[in-house]
Amino acid sequence: MNLASLPTPSLVLDKQVLERNIRRMADILAARGVPLRPHMKTAKSIEVAHLALQGQPGGITVSTLAEAAYFARHGIGDILYAVAITPEKLDAVARLNAAGARVMVITDDADTASAIAAHPSPPRVLIEIDSGEARSGVDPRGDELLAIAERLGPQVAGVMTHAGHSYGARSEAALAAVAETERRAVVSAAERLRAAGHATPIVSMGSSPTAVHGGDFTGVTEVRAGVYMFGDLFQAEIGTHGMDDIAMTVLTSVIGRRPGRLIVDAGGLALSKDRSTEAAPRDYGFGLVLDLAGRPAFGDAIVRRAYQEHGVVELDPAHPLDLPVGAKLRIAPNHTCMTAAAHDRYHVTEGGEEVVAVWDRVNGW
Amino acid sequence: MNLASLPTPSLVLDKQVLERNIRRMADILAARGVPLRPHMKTAKSIEVAHLALQGQPGGITVSTLAEAAYFARHGIGDILYAVAITPEKLDAVARLNAAGARVMVITDDADTASAIAAHPSPPRVLIEIDSGEARSGVDPRGDELLAIAERLGPQVAGVMTHAGHSYGARSEAALAAVAETERRAVVSAAERLRAAGHATPIVSMGSSPTAVHGGDFTGVTEVRAGVYMFGDLFQAEIGTHGMDDIAMTVLTSVIGRRPGRLIVDAGGLALSKDRSTEAAPRDYGFGLVLDLAGRPAFGDAIVRRAYQEHGVVELDPAHPLDLPVGAKLRIAPNHTCMTAAAHDRYHVTEGGEEVVAVWDRVNGW
Repeated sequence: MNLASLPTPSLVLDKQVLERNIRRMADILAARGVPLRPHMKTAKSIEVAHLALQGQPGGITVSTLAEAAYFARHGIGDILYAVAITPEKLDAVARLNAAGARVMVITDDADTASAIAAHPSPPRVLIEIDSGEARSGVDPRGDELLAIAERLGPQVAGVMTHAGHSYGARSEAALAAVAETERRAVVSAAERLRAAGHATPIVSMGSSPTAVHGGDFTGVTEVRAGVYMFGDLFQAEIGTHGMDDIAMTVLTSVIGRRPGRLIVDAGGLALSKDRSTEAAPRDYGFGLVLDLAGRPAFGDAIVRRAYQEHGVVELDPAHPLDLPVGAKLRIAPNHTCMTAAAHDRYHVTEGGEEVVAVWDRVNGW
Repeated sequence: MNLASLPTPSLVLDKQVLERNIRRMADILAARGVPLRPHMKTAKSIEVAHLALQGQPGGITVSTLAEAAYFARHGIGDILYAVAITPEKLDAVARLNAAGARVMVITDDADTASAIAAHPSPPRVLIEIDSGEARSGVDPRGDELLAIAERLGPQVAGVMTHAGHSYGARSEAALAAVAETERRAVVSAAERLRAAGHATPIVSMGSSPTAVHGGDFTGVTEVRAGVYMFGDLFQAEIGTHGMDDIAMTVLTSVIGRRPGRLIVDAGGLALSKDRSTEAAPRDYGFGLVLDLAGRPAFGDAIVRRAYQEHGVVELDPAHPLDLPVGAKLRIAPNHTCMTAAAHDRYHVTEGGEEVVAVWDRVNGW
């Protein structure tokens, strides 16, 4: 099947770019001597997980219990569920582990730590550290870290942090600084736990930007990153990768044409309403329009308005486009995790327009 | 089952509020003497469609071919697919119609009109009119209207318009003015077509705000509206309904707590990244936090940051909240169409916390 004959909107995944992105991240981290626990929250696909795990220890990160169940069912047992657990969700984790998986959870809450310790089949736990994002996690220097470990007892498997504020950094130097802050936070927390008698084998940090820009991973046992596999306009803007490294795009059809603009059948649902690039050097609206081959052939042809099913593309005056209704285009996303989540499958290409495979995704919770 | 024992995040639909919203819209339009062709793009549910069709002629509006196929399969034949058709999609429409449905399509493009007329099984067509939104549609006064009708010949079933710019109006008077402009555009287009010899039985307009605020529907044969069924914070802000009329909410769990804020497991995927209320009188961030019973009990407790799976709730200093991890809350959405689309089912309540039914949704394309 050719992309030109696919229904629209559809997700397209260029396997060549995907594999190049995966290889580049693996090379970067291998040079730094730290393995990868790929975060599957972006791809949510077993085929992508197999590619991302090549040369890695074999563990993955997930963001939902639905992902954990899906990947466990497909044979991946070493899973870090990296969104803070609630006591109510422990039974679901225990069921996966009873069936053979080894799902670890995270917490930054002392009462939850007690609930975990009291559970008949408690999972292993990473204590979440705040390395500056101010979203979740305990202060690596505070008393709470030790109090939580005390309550968890033998369930403590390590510490983890996510420097999500790396997304606010706008230079390589700033990103490297965030990465170093992230490393120090999580490594110092691990050292404090060890001094208190907790083995703390796992010291986990990561985000795609700090994985790429971190210079030193001393004391870190694994890096988590996910969006690097597919890339997007925002990551290109902050320098995680180049504009040629966006592996996932949305195939769309022209459904209307007006002076200076096109209407396409990829709107807020097919693209998401994410506006990450609003604060980036270049604002790509809801996405950048590419040709059917995935090339940025139309200058700044940008989806400036997104209704539920309609996208309004403002054309670049330097690249007037006279396309008929039904013409196919592709759109590079602002934020690939959000865009992918509206779709239940990938149409996989290998650089060209031929669809060589269809890979499913595990959406929802 | 009780809401308190549901996995989170989940969609909750209060059937009492839903039925009240449906009844109110039906009463408003009955008083104006115009029937409703409910737009199912918000609910995407057969059970909701049956409720919305009570006392109405029986036709619905949809925004995707997946919806058309789903509703046809569930016995609703009279379907308006209200996103501009492409020639490539005509075969899918023809298959549905060959199986017994009566799917109508819309176009504003002369070449597409020719493709429709040349199709072996052409559907009936409404010509899309631009009533001021400047998204799609032909000028009701221009030559293109007649040219398209000429090409469609006997397939012309009428005209339709969508005054999406009603969402920019901020007073009842402004909304009423948009509704009257919408009416005049589509009625005048119908009159021109009739004068040119096209029967033009259907004159279709609508959006929830103009349906509620339109004073006169003379010449209009049907009104399309969808979001009124569920309501949302944005519609409440522009006066389509009250704050008590939001039928659909997201059930979430507290997964972290910090001074002045809570972290919940409803983030950008469960809520959508829609920021409709950014331009409204009150900015609700990514949603307003309610108690488990769905009451606005916490003042301005608002989801101010939305990561993929994390929502960060800034608490109202006048309503300090000390909730444990695992506590359940509900979140009223900015834009119900976008929020619902991340979920595959509704957990239906009748005002209380008991789940009386589970209704599915047809997502995707």
